[in-house]
Amino acid sequence: MEKVVVVLSGGMDSATLLYHMIHLGHEVRAISINYGQRHARELRAAAELSRLAKVEHVLADLTAITPLLGNNSLSGREIAVPEGHYADETMKLTVVPNRNMILLAVATAWAVSLKYDAVAYGAHTGDHTIYPDCRPEFAEALDKAVQLCDWHKVRLLRPFVDMDKGQVAKLGHSLGVPFHLTWTCYKGGEKHCGKCGSCNERREAFANAGVAQGPPR
Amino acid sequence: MEKVVVVLSGGMDSATLLYHMIHLGHEVRAISINYGQRHARELRAAAELSRLAKVEHVLADLTAITPLLGNNSLSGREIAVPEGHYADETMKLTVVPNRNMILLAVATAWAVSLKYDAVAYGAHTGDHTIYPDCRPEFAEALDKAVQLCDWHKVRLLRPFVDMDKGQVAKLGHSLGVPFHLTWTCYKGGEKHCGKCGSCNERREAFANAGVAQGPPR
Repeated sequence: MEKVVVVLSGGMDSATLLYHMIHLGHEVRAISINYGQRHARELRAAAELSRLAKVEHVLADLTAITPLLGNNSLSGREIAVPEGHYADETMKLTVVPNRNMILLAVATAWAVSLKYDAVAYGAHTGDHTIYPDCRPEFAEALDKAVQLCDWHKVRLLRPFVDMDKGQVAKLGHSLGVPFHLTWTCYKGGEKHCGKCGSCNERREAFANAGVAQGPPR
Repeated sequence: MEKVVVVLSGGMDSATLLYHMIHLGHEVRAISINYGQRHARELRAAAELSRLAKVEHVLADLTAITPLLGNNSLSGREIAVPEGHYADETMKLTVVPNRNMILLAVATAWAVSLKYDAVAYGAHTGDHTIYPDCRPEFAEALDKAVQLCDWHKVRLLRPFVDMDKGQVAKLGHSLGVPFHLTWTCYKGGEKHCGKCGSCNERREAFANAGVAQGPPR
């Protein structure tokens, strides 16, 4: 049993990660980051999921740095969220510069101050095609830095880094993750738009896994 | 000539770094971070130094995450800043969890969005004895992660990592750094206290370098 801080966006991957860590018997706390994302709706999902899982959850407000993140369709408001498939060139507009290092650096600071053993994040193989900071080589380098950042040693866990999103959905299903509470859509309306890259990827993952996602929102 | 974001605390090391990068002919911008440090006075120094050097300067406000940084004498208010020498055991109270990774992650995000080539920070050998995130092996691991965080490649420069603070002072003196404008004291009053580890280290650095620091504040 270890003590683990889970980076919880409120999407299906990080929700599965949360349940996976709890299922392994770890003592878990969760952290979400508001970096000015258009779909801040996911942060409500993260809070709801944590409450249901009886896990302490903190929300770190980093909106003060949003202006430094430049033009992208998630933290910016001038570029529309592209519709279509993740493999499309337009999806690069959804890359937020160095997002994962920022999230993981803050999560690690919290883990160090709590004397926790690890920080976990839910990057999977489907992410790698578009997000550079979901690549295994990025995670490996950052893990080394995380382990060296303090005299108290914290490790970076990324248990899904060799799984695809369908496999994550399958694992989540077996763990009883309440997928209907998770939030995926990048447009951040009151319902999933069903057209953005994220929505399409979510639908495909459930189809590939052959599992239902529960009543959709 | 490269384009470089300098992490500028407002102290003598980062001020020297700023002048060093400008002297090398780089295009430079500077960033400072408010993480709730008791000596936020240093942020005024950073702004003043940037103005004098005619460099664009941004201040990133991360005070929303201060509660996650736990008990230390810099971002916390319950533990007093220890007096004495840096080598003293009590100085560990001044370690802010994962501070450098957070600063450098935000600086890197900005560098990526600007399409800059590098981020520079001023860690030196004197820092290593107490601050784990000033060690060369930490910087090396983080450099790898920084280079992999985006499709646009950014490097992490740490030109002082094998120099001591006296050598940094000597370099700064030769570059005409206005040391009297820099801020070092961890207590963050209106004048340097002269008694904390930082003040003692500053005085020793100038003595070892055999240079004057200009009219003290």
